[in-house]
Amino acid sequence: MSAQPPLLLALDLIGTFVFGLNGALTAVRATRLDVVGVVTLGMMTALGGGVIRDVLIGAVPPATFQLWYYFALALGGGLIAFALSRKLHRLEMPITVLDAVGLSVFAVMGAGKAVEYGLGVGPAVLLGVITAVGGGTIRDLMIGQVPTVLRSELYAIPALVAATLTVAAMGIGIYGLSAALVAASACFVIRMVGVHFNLNAPEPPGSRDQRR
Amino acid sequence: MSAQPPLLLALDLIGTFVFGLNGALTAVRATRLDVVGVVTLGMMTALGGGVIRDVLIGAVPPATFQLWYYFALALGGGLIAFALSRKLHRLEMPITVLDAVGLSVFAVMGAGKAVEYGLGVGPAVLLGVITAVGGGTIRDLMIGQVPTVLRSELYAIPALVAATLTVAAMGIGIYGLSAALVAASACFVIRMVGVHFNLNAPEPPGSRDQRR
Amino acid sequence: MSAQPPLLLALDLIGTFVFGLNGALTAVRATRLDVVGVVTLGMMTALGGGVIRDVLIGAVPPATFQLWYYFALALGGGLIAFALSRKLHRLEMPITVLDAVGLSVFAVMGAGKAVEYGLGVGPAVLLGVITAVGGGTIRDLMIGQVPTVLRSELYAIPALVAATLTVAAMGIGIYGLSAALVAASACFVIRMVGVHFNLNAPEPPGSRDQRR
Repeated sequence: MSAQPPLLLALDLIGTFVFGLNGALTAVRATRLDVVGVVTLGMMTALGGGVIRDVLIGAVPPATFQLWYYFALALGGGLIAFALSRKLHRLEMPITVLDAVGLSVFAVMGAGKAVEYGLGVGPAVLLGVITAVGGGTIRDLMIGQVPTVLRSELYAIPALVAATLTVAAMGIGIYGLSAALVAASACFVIRMVGVHFNLNAPEPPGSRDQRR
Repeated sequence: MSAQPPLLLALDLIGTFVFGLNGALTAVRATRLDVVGVVTLGMMTALGGGVIRDVLIGAVPPATFQLWYYFALALGGGLIAFALSRKLHRLEMPITVLDAVGLSVFAVMGAGKAVEYGLGVGPAVLLGVITAVGGGTIRDLMIGQVPTVLRSELYAIPALVAATLTVAAMGIGIYGLSAALVAASACFVIRMVGVHFNLNAPEPPGSRDQRR
Repeated sequence: MSAQPPLLLALDLIGTFVFGLNGALTAVRATRLDVVGVVTLGMMTALGGGVIRDVLIGAVPPATFQLWYYFALALGGGLIAFALSRKLHRLEMPITVLDAVGLSVFAVMGAGKAVEYGLGVGPAVLLGVITAVGGGTIRDLMIGQVPTVLRSELYAIPALVAATLTVAAMGIGIYGLSAALVAASACFVIRMVGVHFNLNAPEPPGSRDQRR
């Protein structure tokens, strides 16, 4: 990966830690797991999206396997979630906010890396979204749930907006720290508005009844 | 991918569209999903098998990420299924027929691409089958179902026949449009006979009771 | 893959066969599948971990796609399990022992291959564990179960020990047949002690009630 501005790198590291924490917490709530299971699911949540992206663009071994601090942050998030799972329930709102930070930064950096590897516009946007939501999707599959991103809450759409803005900015040659922050902020705002108003994307016409 | 005869390319494109449509319809029937979920599952069904094949043979980024029309056809199939899900139920038979076309063409072209990339006989046959059934398998995992291909209906076996014929024809140097069409037709006929007579592959000796 | 000592190669081949057998048996017990499903799940169990490892380190096509005898052993294990599923239930203990052999050898050889491909310490250990438990995890996902490795039984931890010992031995330059056998034996002993005493890794503090 090319050198990143320190602010983006910091946000990316925060996102990795929070995804590890949040993924492990979701696992603890959903099903009975031992420490290996909880920490594994936290790490899969934090690192899974980037690993899928890197495999698809041919950047193997994946970056997170080569940069130990990503690895360590994901592991640390999972261990903290395991140890403090009962206390962390009280911190739901801060965790949701930091999770939205991770979603935003992962979408921007995933799309940017795909463009750097020569992917076209559509695929680069798709890879940005995959980077942002892939880890959580793997976790949901592992615990036997239909992935949240397919089912409810405005989660993939803000990532799609951020990835599109990123690819557009790179296409017209204005990508840099400012553009990245604008793209990430757009994702963050849409996500938080969605959380606040409990919004969802449209369902198929004639769905049997209103959502739960 | 090397240049394909126009007829095979046309069938491949039809297969991609129908897999997108059919995958999204299956998703709509099976579980409650929003538009993002339905279209995502349609695209995974249409493109998933080819992506797995390309990752396994080292042809990354996968072809479908570089050829925008595959992408567009899969997306279009998913969107149409989302919009017209209630009306499309009446078209079950045409969709089953087109799905068998997709299965046949994907098995032939998947096996052919694996041979082109230097894979041996067994792996090339396997990759043909993976190309044909991989997308539907990912979709079934995502919606929490045991993959159809593992469970019922003569689905993997016709793909295995088509892939084997393809690899054999390439091995003895008679592969071309005619051989590809023979291989695909064999798959198509077996599949449609299976659908018509509701046939299944044998179950383990002493299964508890007859199938549902 | 570089030339392996004959003993390690023999253990690796035994592990592949037993994983194929055991994976298929697990599938037969868990859900209704036809012969295609049972054999497919056996092969996924036997080959899945190594395939994931090879994709992640960029060694594609995966080794098991190029060495036909791995393929044949996995297929043979699955077919035997399909044919003899009722009789094999009586052999549960020998199968558990051979499964532990496979787990041990796969962890050692997976970690060793990752080091050969230039991975760092942490990633190489992780890839050893993925090689050992990846196939069973894919099988469990396919049959709709939360993967055993996440949930119960001391399964990942012995693999982690073997992978760590392997990477350590390579790091200080004493890796060879003896070191490999020590690492594999450590895994095997921990695993069998876990089976004998029905041990599990710790669960989160305040889990709702004692395990099942």
